[in-house]
Amino acid sequence: MTNSEIDKLINEISRLPSLGRRSAQRIALYLLKNKHKSLVPLIKSLEEANTNIINCENCGNIDIFSPCSLCINKKRDKQTICVVEDISDLWTFEKIGFFHGLYHVLGGALSAINGISTEQISIDKLLKRIKDEHVKEVILALSTTVEGQTTSHVISDKLEKIDELQVTKLAQGVPIGGEVHYLDENTLQAAFQSRKKII
Amino acid sequence: MTNSEIDKLINEISRLPSLGRRSAQRIALYLLKNKHKSLVPLIKSLEEANTNIINCENCGNIDIFSPCSLCINKKRDKQTICVVEDISDLWTFEKIGFFHGLYHVLGGALSAINGISTEQISIDKLLKRIKDEHVKEVILALSTTVEGQTTSHVISDKLEKIDELQVTKLAQGVPIGGEVHYLDENTLQAAFQSRKKII
Repeated sequence: MTNSEIDKLINEISRLPSLGRRSAQRIALYLLKNKHKSLVPLIKSLEEANTNIINCENCGNIDIFSPCSLCINKKRDKQTICVVEDISDLWTFEKIGFFHGLYHVLGGALSAINGISTEQISIDKLLKRIKDEHVKEVILALSTTVEGQTTSHVISDKLEKIDELQVTKLAQGVPIGGEVHYLDENTLQAAFQSRKKII
Repeated sequence: MTNSEIDKLINEISRLPSLGRRSAQRIALYLLKNKHKSLVPLIKSLEEANTNIINCENCGNIDIFSPCSLCINKKRDKQTICVVEDISDLWTFEKIGFFHGLYHVLGGALSAINGISTEQISIDKLLKRIKDEHVKEVILALSTTVEGQTTSHVISDKLEKIDELQVTKLAQGVPIGGEVHYLDENTLQAAFQSRKKII
């Protein structure tokens, strides 16, 4: 259909997340039709990102320096650490902007199926940070998937032994705007069990 | 939310077709988390494409040489030209593989709204090719949109004057697998008017 050089580009693009082969083809054509306006600036941005953006040695965030701008920000509460699975979760928190502590990015959740064990996610570093930085509260903001909850359990087991450390997790219940008759069984049960006294 | 260097990358990615901001963010993170396995090879592919892939001076296709591999292929029927709006249309024909002539990529369709006039699409070059290469049939394979059909009309007006040239366009009617009660009014009317005698 097309020559191998173009196919190679389409293949490389279609490996990116959220892109199928048809979108990859559209993007490749767009880039090749507007080399000067789109392909060259994209190459430049990717090269700059490759050179400049690095992982924060402290929390696992990405930034142009390490420790990252969140870790060195003096206005942030260094005694509270919010543990998240992925950098995108950190971004979600920061976008809303109500949390003023630090983060710890695990880089995934434990998963027997995907072969992700405690060594592959950043648990030991979290324990070290908690001890070194005299952290007072750890908020486990992991997904309510089997993997996320397993990871939460494993981490809270390890944190139990640390004195004067408060460990919390996100509340489970009815999402805001959620209609009860559309809720799945597990969410409804969790919301029911954690019901709150109002009068 | 994120620092400007990362934002710049996300912006650049979100300018690509079929990508929203959330997908762009996912792709940026994927690239930055797997620099060696994904970002570096992608930069390499884009750079190679930028250097090697060029437009065919003859038909408007893209390839690593000009005239392109279709134009120089001795097995193709040089007396039949299939006129398409875009390179992706050419790719669709080539993927199915039933057409063995040459192509002419217009690079768009006439559109008053988008300010695309006859000078901006490759009509003059098409006329020149038809005269120089003793073409016998021109197949207008343009979209059945207002723009595509206007372009078809403008081109066929110009081709009328050329002696012994057959000009055809794609048949309009019920798509294969299409159910009559789902058809839009215009398609049904076109299919009815072009009905064929079977007995």
